Amino acid sequence: MSREPEAGFELHPRLARDTVFIADWPLCRVLLMDDARFPWLILVPRRAGMRELDDLDDDERALLMQEIQAAMKALRTVAACDKLNVGVLGNIVRQLHVHVVARRVGDAAWPGPVWGQGEALRYTPAQRQSLATQLRSGTGS
Amino acid sequence: MSREPEAGFELHPRLARDTVFIADWPLCRVLLMDDARFPWLILVPRRAGMRELDDLDDDERALLMQEIQAAMKALRTVAACDKLNVGVLGNIVRQLHVHVVARRVGDAAWPGPVWGQGEALRYTPAQRQSLATQLRSGTGS
Repeated sequence: MSREPEAGFELHPRLARDTVFIADWPLCRVLLMDDARFPWLILVPRRAGMRELDDLDDDERALLMQEIQAAMKALRTVAACDKLNVGVLGNIVRQLHVHVVARRVGDAAWPGPVWGQGEALRYTPAQRQSLATQLRSGTGS
Repeated sequence: MSREPEAGFELHPRLARDTVFIADWPLCRVLLMDDARFPWLILVPRRAGMRELDDLDDDERALLMQEIQAAMKALRTVAACDKLNVGVLGNIVRQLHVHVVARRVGDAAWPGPVWGQGEALRYTPAQRQSLATQLRSGTGS
């Protein structure tokens, strides 16, 4: 890896506000979106100044693909789902981040995308703690 | 590659209807979405029965990441853009496909996602042909 991991990396305040920390994987910080409507992980590469997928180097991008796959697997362990949605948008929060969302037929945004749909429904503290614990045990942290 | 490429692959009729063929890359069929509101490519791995990213094998997934990057580059050659959006949804069309969309501040869906936003505005035949030609020359087909 040519870059020093994490040098200058800071999580965008909006991502920090809307999520719960789950784990640091080799490339990404793994966050649970605090929205009980959708089991939803966010992967944030711990590299400063990244906005687009191709700001990462080849090794980092390969690692990101592996971590997306790991996030899909982790979501399946905690939630029944009919489809997984993966998205790299960044129109609002420019820091590069990847959404991995477990979708169910008939969920609050089905069959549309989850982004920009209504207001987040926060987990209760007990729900949040339980889900975070399950995800942490499933993600090796 | 353990699987025979393209064995049994057929493009979903809805993807065929909504797009223009651009090229076949090593893994994916590259399609231009026929929607003049957004410069938008769709990559469809030419493998039968794929629905989720992790239905692909490791080599295919690595190749897909390279082709996503190539699609981003191709879009930048034909359109000014402020952000690229990449999405794997498949809630409606289950055949695995990846959206790569050039976004501009103030475009018809900004800053929301493009999926499910209003009706497609078809290119005129002249616009469609011109853009497809530019994309084909830029994508090595």
